[in-house]
Amino acid sequence: MDTNFLEAVKEAEIGIAEGGIPIGSVLVHNGKIIGRGHNKRVQKGSVILHGEMDALENAGRQPASVYKESVLYTTLSPCPMCSGTILLYGIPKVVIGENKTFLGAEKLLKENGVEVVVLDDKRCKELMDQFIAEKPELWNEDIGV
Amino acid sequence: MDTNFLEAVKEAEIGIAEGGIPIGSVLVHNGKIIGRGHNKRVQKGSVILHGEMDALENAGRQPASVYKESVLYTTLSPCPMCSGTILLYGIPKVVIGENKTFLGAEKLLKENGVEVVVLDDKRCKELMDQFIAEKPELWNEDIGV
Repeated sequence: MDTNFLEAVKEAEIGIAEGGIPIGSVLVHNGKIIGRGHNKRVQKGSVILHGEMDALENAGRQPASVYKESVLYTTLSPCPMCSGTILLYGIPKVVIGENKTFLGAEKLLKENGVEVVVLDDKRCKELMDQFIAEKPELWNEDIGV
Repeated sequence: MDTNFLEAVKEAEIGIAEGGIPIGSVLVHNGKIIGRGHNKRVQKGSVILHGEMDALENAGRQPASVYKESVLYTTLSPCPMCSGTILLYGIPKVVIGENKTFLGAEKLLKENGVEVVVLDDKRCKELMDQFIAEKPELWNEDIGV
């Protein structure tokens, strides 16, 4: 198992322990994690800090060249906002825990040349199943439903 | 002139006065501004707070129904990140100051049924021209170039 992916899962687990939405992400540049984060809708009242956005924000301001050599790991298929951000910064590869709970804008990513790897990871799915069973309205809010 | 649009321009002017990137935005629900903001790359070291994202974040957590009855005003054509966010939340209409400096993902918005109005506003263009002449590298960083 890719240890970077396991760090994204750890972030999702921190999120659920905080009473938040269990989606985590890490941004990896040349094999090193330069940003990590998880969904902060509950914790910060944020409508834009999805896990991926939080990881990118925590990586801080980076030259364009860094994004273009990076891989974004996320426990759940990235929504249109997060996918648009991946395209804005030209991140060439995204590794996704699972896309059964929610299928994001993977088609848009692929159409724009992004390599998309879906792991179909059991732990990621379990975290979302548990969360959605407990807080369905919070989940709907997060995906604009 | 639409007074909501003028508020977005005011936000852009605040941004340039702060030494930041002069792009402003307001989110308007049933004629009332519920969120306003401007690009915060410089001010907060943020890679995700484009003007539109800042306005949405400042509007706070809203039910899905509010976004679906709202109009987003922005002084510059929205990039893929901001356009993806508009799609995530189902905002049906976007009013754009200008798209000569930068053409964002307007095609993606239109393909997904979003009404896109471009005003070709002289003041918005002037602000960006002044900013880019002074800080071209900062501008490139903001659009991932």
